[in-house]
Amino acid sequence: MKTKKKRIGDKPGTLVYTGNRTEVTSSITLIKYNSTNYKKIENCKLNQVFNLDTNEIKWVNIDGLTNVDIIESIGKKFSLNPLILEDILSTNQRPKVDEYKNSLYIVAKMLYLDKNTYEIKKEQVSFVLCNDYIFTFQEYKGDVFDNVRNQIKADKGEIRDLKSDYLLYALLDSIVDSYFDVLEEIEDKIDEIEDSLMDNPSNDTLQNIYKLKRAMLLLRNTIWPTRTMVSTLIKFKIPQIKDETNLFLRDLQDHTYQLIDTLDIYRESLSGMLDTYLSSISNKTNDIMKFLTIFSTIFIPLTFITGIYGMNFSHMPGINYKHAMPIFYLISIILTFSMLLYFRKKKWL
Amino acid sequence: MKTKKKRIGDKPGTLVYTGNRTEVTSSITLIKYNSTNYKKIENCKLNQVFNLDTNEIKWVNIDGLTNVDIIESIGKKFSLNPLILEDILSTNQRPKVDEYKNSLYIVAKMLYLDKNTYEIKKEQVSFVLCNDYIFTFQEYKGDVFDNVRNQIKADKGEIRDLKSDYLLYALLDSIVDSYFDVLEEIEDKIDEIEDSLMDNPSNDTLQNIYKLKRAMLLLRNTIWPTRTMVSTLIKFKIPQIKDETNLFLRDLQDHTYQLIDTLDIYRESLSGMLDTYLSSISNKTNDIMKFLTIFSTIFIPLTFITGIYGMNFSHMPGINYKHAMPIFYLISIILTFSMLLYFRKKKWL
Amino acid sequence: MKTKKKRIGDKPGTLVYTGNRTEVTSSITLIKYNSTNYKKIENCKLNQVFNLDTNEIKWVNIDGLTNVDIIESIGKKFSLNPLILEDILSTNQRPKVDEYKNSLYIVAKMLYLDKNTYEIKKEQVSFVLCNDYIFTFQEYKGDVFDNVRNQIKADKGEIRDLKSDYLLYALLDSIVDSYFDVLEEIEDKIDEIEDSLMDNPSNDTLQNIYKLKRAMLLLRNTIWPTRTMVSTLIKFKIPQIKDETNLFLRDLQDHTYQLIDTLDIYRESLSGMLDTYLSSISNKTNDIMKFLTIFSTIFIPLTFITGIYGMNFSHMPGINYKHAMPIFYLISIILTFSMLLYFRKKKWL
Amino acid sequence: MKTKKKRIGDKPGTLVYTGNRTEVTSSITLIKYNSTNYKKIENCKLNQVFNLDTNEIKWVNIDGLTNVDIIESIGKKFSLNPLILEDILSTNQRPKVDEYKNSLYIVAKMLYLDKNTYEIKKEQVSFVLCNDYIFTFQEYKGDVFDNVRNQIKADKGEIRDLKSDYLLYALLDSIVDSYFDVLEEIEDKIDEIEDSLMDNPSNDTLQNIYKLKRAMLLLRNTIWPTRTMVSTLIKFKIPQIKDETNLFLRDLQDHTYQLIDTLDIYRESLSGMLDTYLSSISNKTNDIMKFLTIFSTIFIPLTFITGIYGMNFSHMPGINYKHAMPIFYLISIILTFSMLLYFRKKKWL
Amino acid sequence: MKTKKKRIGDKPGTLVYTGNRTEVTSSITLIKYNSTNYKKIENCKLNQVFNLDTNEIKWVNIDGLTNVDIIESIGKKFSLNPLILEDILSTNQRPKVDEYKNSLYIVAKMLYLDKNTYEIKKEQVSFVLCNDYIFTFQEYKGDVFDNVRNQIKADKGEIRDLKSDYLLYALLDSIVDSYFDVLEEIEDKIDEIEDSLMDNPSNDTLQNIYKLKRAMLLLRNTIWPTRTMVSTLIKFKIPQIKDETNLFLRDLQDHTYQLIDTLDIYRESLSGMLDTYLSSISNKTNDIMKFLTIFSTIFIPLTFITGIYGMNFSHMPGINYKHAMPIFYLISIILTFSMLLYFRKKKWL
Repeated sequence: MKTKKKRIGDKPGTLVYTGNRTEVTSSITLIKYNSTNYKKIENCKLNQVFNLDTNEIKWVNIDGLTNVDIIESIGKKFSLNPLILEDILSTNQRPKVDEYKNSLYIVAKMLYLDKNTYEIKKEQVSFVLCNDYIFTFQEYKGDVFDNVRNQIKADKGEIRDLKSDYLLYALLDSIVDSYFDVLEEIEDKIDEIEDSLMDNPSNDTLQNIYKLKRAMLLLRNTIWPTRTMVSTLIKFKIPQIKDETNLFLRDLQDHTYQLIDTLDIYRESLSGMLDTYLSSISNKTNDIMKFLTIFSTIFIPLTFITGIYGMNFSHMPGINYKHAMPIFYLISIILTFSMLLYFRKKKWL
Repeated sequence: MKTKKKRIGDKPGTLVYTGNRTEVTSSITLIKYNSTNYKKIENCKLNQVFNLDTNEIKWVNIDGLTNVDIIESIGKKFSLNPLILEDILSTNQRPKVDEYKNSLYIVAKMLYLDKNTYEIKKEQVSFVLCNDYIFTFQEYKGDVFDNVRNQIKADKGEIRDLKSDYLLYALLDSIVDSYFDVLEEIEDKIDEIEDSLMDNPSNDTLQNIYKLKRAMLLLRNTIWPTRTMVSTLIKFKIPQIKDETNLFLRDLQDHTYQLIDTLDIYRESLSGMLDTYLSSISNKTNDIMKFLTIFSTIFIPLTFITGIYGMNFSHMPGINYKHAMPIFYLISIILTFSMLLYFRKKKWL
Repeated sequence: MKTKKKRIGDKPGTLVYTGNRTEVTSSITLIKYNSTNYKKIENCKLNQVFNLDTNEIKWVNIDGLTNVDIIESIGKKFSLNPLILEDILSTNQRPKVDEYKNSLYIVAKMLYLDKNTYEIKKEQVSFVLCNDYIFTFQEYKGDVFDNVRNQIKADKGEIRDLKSDYLLYALLDSIVDSYFDVLEEIEDKIDEIEDSLMDNPSNDTLQNIYKLKRAMLLLRNTIWPTRTMVSTLIKFKIPQIKDETNLFLRDLQDHTYQLIDTLDIYRESLSGMLDTYLSSISNKTNDIMKFLTIFSTIFIPLTFITGIYGMNFSHMPGINYKHAMPIFYLISIILTFSMLLYFRKKKWL
Repeated sequence: MKTKKKRIGDKPGTLVYTGNRTEVTSSITLIKYNSTNYKKIENCKLNQVFNLDTNEIKWVNIDGLTNVDIIESIGKKFSLNPLILEDILSTNQRPKVDEYKNSLYIVAKMLYLDKNTYEIKKEQVSFVLCNDYIFTFQEYKGDVFDNVRNQIKADKGEIRDLKSDYLLYALLDSIVDSYFDVLEEIEDKIDEIEDSLMDNPSNDTLQNIYKLKRAMLLLRNTIWPTRTMVSTLIKFKIPQIKDETNLFLRDLQDHTYQLIDTLDIYRESLSGMLDTYLSSISNKTNDIMKFLTIFSTIFIPLTFITGIYGMNFSHMPGINYKHAMPIFYLISIILTFSMLLYFRKKKWL
Repeated sequence: MKTKKKRIGDKPGTLVYTGNRTEVTSSITLIKYNSTNYKKIENCKLNQVFNLDTNEIKWVNIDGLTNVDIIESIGKKFSLNPLILEDILSTNQRPKVDEYKNSLYIVAKMLYLDKNTYEIKKEQVSFVLCNDYIFTFQEYKGDVFDNVRNQIKADKGEIRDLKSDYLLYALLDSIVDSYFDVLEEIEDKIDEIEDSLMDNPSNDTLQNIYKLKRAMLLLRNTIWPTRTMVSTLIKFKIPQIKDETNLFLRDLQDHTYQLIDTLDIYRESLSGMLDTYLSSISNKTNDIMKFLTIFSTIFIPLTFITGIYGMNFSHMPGINYKHAMPIFYLISIILTFSMLLYFRKKKWL
């Protein structure tokens, strides 16, 4: 549950990467395209990225935030506000959108569920939209954008005919889409817990319910500001976002609502499981109690009878009677059966 | 509890049906009418639907969303925004209204309660209002609109004298009305649970309470955006909706409020049942405990007495007394009765 | 808990009474007055009500909604919107105000607490304010307006000097005032429950708490939209409502706030009782446990001792000692007392 | 918990005192002052109060609301709206501010905690600000304004140099200040409960927690509208309130926020206590159970052994062995100790 | 849990320090700087602070609020509103911003977690921004501003090039940053509690959970108005705050959101622990019960058998049989094992 301390305000004006993926060296990938051309350059140098043809969309993806120079150079070249550069490097931002004079800055989060610890792993993605350039900054390699890359390459849909704001939408859409994957994994986990609740509820079950609850809270804490971010893009007529793209963003906003709805239903399920778990403990106590009570109350009177005839009184009627023992056994059996009938009537059996 | 993964953003711009009713082949039904004429054509071809007389209201109902061509053709013919077509096909939309230049797009949900699993089944209905045309897209055959069909056919009420926006209202009203049916079924289930809670509360009772709670949450998740959708129709003076129809929509909005109110009362009832269930378990434990305690405490001292006279001391006063046994029985009976009186005083009996 | 299914949207445009008081035949009562004149006509005909002197206030009360003709005639005569007529007849409206061009339509609810079942009975009252006419439509005879009738008759206060909007206020005020009566009855019930909680908490107590909770929720569901309705009357400068009356309505609004406040306090009380009930069950379990434990632990060692001297060893020291029995009794008494002291120290006694 | 029924709307236009302090006879106290003069007249007549020098602030305090004539006379003399007079007399108003043409009417509540029953006692204070006059109407003698009286008399601070609106602020401030006293008393009670929870938690503790919770809810129900009232004074540029006084009122508003914050923290404390109480009951059950279990399981096998050698078989090995008894004791002790060790390992001891 | 009574409204217009750090004597520290110069004077006199060069930023820090003269002198010199001076001295303000004509007044709180009692200690810091002067008033020595002091001294970042509003931001940022430290300490405590919950849950664990909950509520009560305060600075175009600084403040606002998010997750964790604790008590009860039941039910039938053969009937079949004892032992062992198998099947072992 470690939430690393944020040293954000440490030295305003100095660029330092605050995340914990310090072992990753930065690498740049450029994809440039328009309706006719397409080119992808992996591991390219920074100067390959600048001064490109203006009638192409340029998507510059930077994996790894340790080479601060790259970010500084881009900042200088495109005269980005220093705050953007700082925000890219401090990886505990909430999803948000900041509008600047010549650029649009967006923070989003890629989420993964650790299947063993039920923890949500977060990776920050920063988007800088600057005319026909889109910069994406990720903490490490591997992302949820392959779908978009394939679309561009294969010229599927309208993506090659539209502008950089549509690319921005497509990337955000990929991220929100990946949240549905996380939700699906959570649902699998909920099903697992439900099964273990039926078979053999243990303290672990309880722990897992709470781990999932926490994961869902984290998810919610990411989805909620994402929703706000998308709403902001829609409402405030941002010049970088065209009207047609706005319609797509409204679609995206609907998806965030669906995510929240689904989370609410999962939460209700987990609450139900929690109560089921607690009531199953109570039921177990009842079962044990019932067993003890039935067992004790059958033998207590019988033992009492043996006690009576174990007494050393000189004058004990019937003690010398020949069939005393069989009669004793008969009485025992009758007593036992009437007890069992009584318990059955009481629905304890 | 399976919520199918949504692959909405998969390929923006490509039309694919995302629901799970892929076995249904699409069929078109046309109803055209005005105050004097009425005609209904079942299983008609698409070209029968286009270029019809403008002074008639045309209601085109499409059952089954697998034939994507039909939807594409309608889209082209009426120059609908591509997003409308995509939304029709992705059947996990929340109820909403989207206003476009030449058309109004509305998503609503038909709900059914599965009486065995207590699950809410959803079917998406899309409405496209385009001048004197209304298109309704359903996932499969069978709906809640028979009432409206009869009204049009029999010329009941004012429906034949009014325009397509009133037909839209009448259809939406049928849907909201059907929610009251679902609520009534839920109420029956609540009554069933209440009865089983009195007779024989079991773990199943608990499971059913939670299943109903989940169903009601799903219901709420549908009714709430439906309410918002109707409000949007009322507030934003949409040109397609006439002022007279607005009054009817306000009525519809009142119904959604009533639905929410009723759900709240049901939820309170279910919470009450939950507590009743849990406290009935505690009471049962108490009953068992009481039984054991009463039984044990009656026999424990008696058995102790038999123990005393079972000791092998040579000098035991009264051991040779002739009436020892009857006195022992007398003492036993007195002890038992005083115990029982004590327990009665303690209200354990 | 039966909430009758609402068949509101059944046939828009057709007037049908949807309530369940179909056995009541409608009757009309007219009260007309101004500062100098006063006349009351019971069971009058409809035509006695029309075309009356304009400088008198006319209050036309209709009890029973089964004679739809009466409502239709009034509708025609005063050219009321058809939706008003429908709303009068569908008796499951929420409290609301609808402003029309020539009239003001208000729905309110009279509430009664059934003292046996703890259920809230509702009766809908519709108000139509149309210049110097006020029409009130009730489901059956008997209401909370006698106070107002007396005021008009006896010329108490300013009611005879003021206009129809003040009469409307006075009637609404009577209704809200009657809610305080219901609250008082609920308070009596709460006190009863509190007493039974002290004396002999049973499962019935729990049931009653939940019945009251449900009643209070229903009450809240009525008071809340009533408050909204009054606020609407105040905020939207409705031409039928004069500025002076506005001040009175603000007073009325304050009362609805008081009602909500009181409900909140009652709810807190009921929650407290619920926890008290549950903890009293736990305490009872503890008491029973304590009793069993004390009783068992006193006799267990004593019975063990009798067991020892009941063994048939040939060599048992002290078994032939003359005072063995008195010593055994002494030891028993000492053991018992030290046990009791120990339990007292443990605060179990 | 008696909330007296409100008969507010009984007879609009007739002045009747609705409170329950009917035994108090009204008395008038006049304090008039400016920066140079100061005079206080106790038990003065009504006509001594009218027509006074306009360059002095006149504070007219009326204790006891039974003499309705006084209120009516003031109303006539200053042509106050009749609603003000009614509101003064109906003592179950919520705190509020009403602006009239020539005057400002404010309702506030003085609160006292009954230290035995933990109930909040309310006394209504009405303020009428009318140019250089302030009228305060209290239900009975004794209030929280002595502080203000001393300030005026001793000419402390700026009060003598400022106008009647500052006096109004000073009086309201005294009231809000007195809420802090109530909160302090509640805190003392919370500490008491906390102590009794440690020493000897009983059902009384639970009752007291709920009494306090109810008291705090009542407090909140008073503070919240007080906050709204002060906000209204600040926001709506009321001509009677000068801009300088506005700054003070903002300060007052901050205090109401602090009150709410403190109440929230107390509520959290009480919830914590509630859970502590409930878990301490569970722990007690556990302790009792543990005791019984340990005791029983030590003696059960021992008693079994005595049972074996109490059997009357003719051939029992070792029964005639000389040291049978010492060996039996030895075995008993060894068994007991190994049991105890086992329980210690299980952390039951 | 003592919340000192606030005597704020005591004597409006008189300056009295209301905090409880009355033993601290005030001391003044001046830091003045611009892009080229830097000077720090500790323990300086008040007149050293006035009339300084206008092209330098002057940060005047006052530790200790007991010397009211200092505050009064500053108030006179800079003609500050008297309310500012009062607010500086009453140290139970909530975080807020007040805009005056010539100055900006801000209240913030420095928070520390007492590691033993889990209590939040608060220290009030008041900021007065007056052109190129910033006054900070602290209750005692020691603060969270060393970081800012170092930045100014070492000319790190842009702080020396920017104006007093940036200094204000930097100071506020240090405070908000220090909240993250408190959160980190709380997280450590949560981890500790989690460990003790696994090892040996006791009533102390419960107490600590509630202490932490209370601390977090206090934290929330401080962070929430801090957030509002920062928002106010951003929204209301305050002339003292430049547009560039606004961007930094937006960053600060994001941090407050992160704090709230983190608190929410911690709260969820604590709730989980609470339930874990309560269910672990229930589980313990079950364990004890199980042990008792297993032990009793094994010995009860065996003891019954010994009872049978302890009876003194003359005719007892098999009593003289030579191998009676070994057979008895065999039966005992078989019974015991079948019992154990049964319990294993029931999953009690």
